[in-house]
Amino acid sequence: MKNIGVILSGCGIYDGSEIQEVVLTLLSIDKAGASPFCFAPDIPQYHVIDHTSGEVMTGEKRNVLVESARICRGNIMDLKKIDSVELDALIIPGGYGAAKNLSDYAIRNAEFDVIPDVAKVVDSFHRAGKPIGFICIAPVIAARLLGSEHVELTVGSHRQTVADIESLGARNVDVGVEDIVVSTQCKVVSTPAYMLGQSIGEVAAGIDALVRKVVELS
Amino acid sequence: MKNIGVILSGCGIYDGSEIQEVVLTLLSIDKAGASPFCFAPDIPQYHVIDHTSGEVMTGEKRNVLVESARICRGNIMDLKKIDSVELDALIIPGGYGAAKNLSDYAIRNAEFDVIPDVAKVVDSFHRAGKPIGFICIAPVIAARLLGSEHVELTVGSHRQTVADIESLGARNVDVGVEDIVVSTQCKVVSTPAYMLGQSIGEVAAGIDALVRKVVELS
Repeated sequence: MKNIGVILSGCGIYDGSEIQEVVLTLLSIDKAGASPFCFAPDIPQYHVIDHTSGEVMTGEKRNVLVESARICRGNIMDLKKIDSVELDALIIPGGYGAAKNLSDYAIRNAEFDVIPDVAKVVDSFHRAGKPIGFICIAPVIAARLLGSEHVELTVGSHRQTVADIESLGARNVDVGVEDIVVSTQCKVVSTPAYMLGQSIGEVAAGIDALVRKVVELS
Repeated sequence: MKNIGVILSGCGIYDGSEIQEVVLTLLSIDKAGASPFCFAPDIPQYHVIDHTSGEVMTGEKRNVLVESARICRGNIMDLKKIDSVELDALIIPGGYGAAKNLSDYAIRNAEFDVIPDVAKVVDSFHRAGKPIGFICIAPVIAARLLGSEHVELTVGSHRQTVADIESLGARNVDVGVEDIVVSTQCKVVSTPAYMLGQSIGEVAAGIDALVRKVVELS
């Protein structure tokens, strides 16, 4: 049985992982006959957003690992311990947490950095020839780390994000919400999910295709 | 197209809605060709649990409606406004939030009450002959409100919970995690979900069966 690492970035689209994308990833991993292992960095969130209003909750402090644990019923480990599990592939779901907590893309745009613990993990999987899936906005992380290898990605046709990832050397491919882009050389798979999705069903179809491809390549 | 109300109780199994059960419910509603409308009460959570440790986070205060909004990307309304949408059926997913925020079953056991806003909504759907689905631990709410009609329910074979719901007049039926119990007279459907489930795939199967039956009865 294949073991698939999933990196979370909090709990909620506006300040963490997009919850539906994470749950659909876990469901598709299970359907593919593989086992998910969830990880998150043990760091403070960039901020906390009230998801009814979209406003910052001033003075509120939350931790990325502690909040991520909500989605996976406590079955989660500190990202620093990822080497302690034998993993065959890696998947990073979307949500602003990928651009606020795992990287600072939402704050610094094309000048952004990926946090060292995430960069280290992606780099080690890439060097080992293991496939990595990036969902929704998370492909910006692949562009930052693998742009020099001209990795092919989709970011759901969002024009500014397309310009930003192409400025890093990545190649954008426009596809539909139920489709995936496979960068064969880099073993990187991406899907637009809620960058384009209007319904949970179509997002589920794209994520299911991504997970099946990642498991197949592993 | 049928409109299905979904009542949330927070965001995380130990102090709110079981996130995976909610997302799987939304997915199955979409697959069934219906539309989900999410609601939650605008009240403080009973408490906040650190989902990595299971411990109470002392001094932390969160709101049920605000946290529930994370699961459904902000597409949620105050439960008090449920009459403003024409709904054909109602579903209440599980998680301790159903037993700590929507009711106080987790605190008072068989002596528990359901909060008035939830009791009022369940009662109005029931009187209108509209089907209601209860997932995981949420069937205790049906037992409290419809026990006198000998509603048939499953609570995943958990012995103390079976004794508690039968003391209220409900009838327990033991079924597998992928199965449902249909109380035909009451138009109430229930499934064990994570009361029994060992994997997200089998929980998804039970919830999908429940949603299909609820939509069919509506």
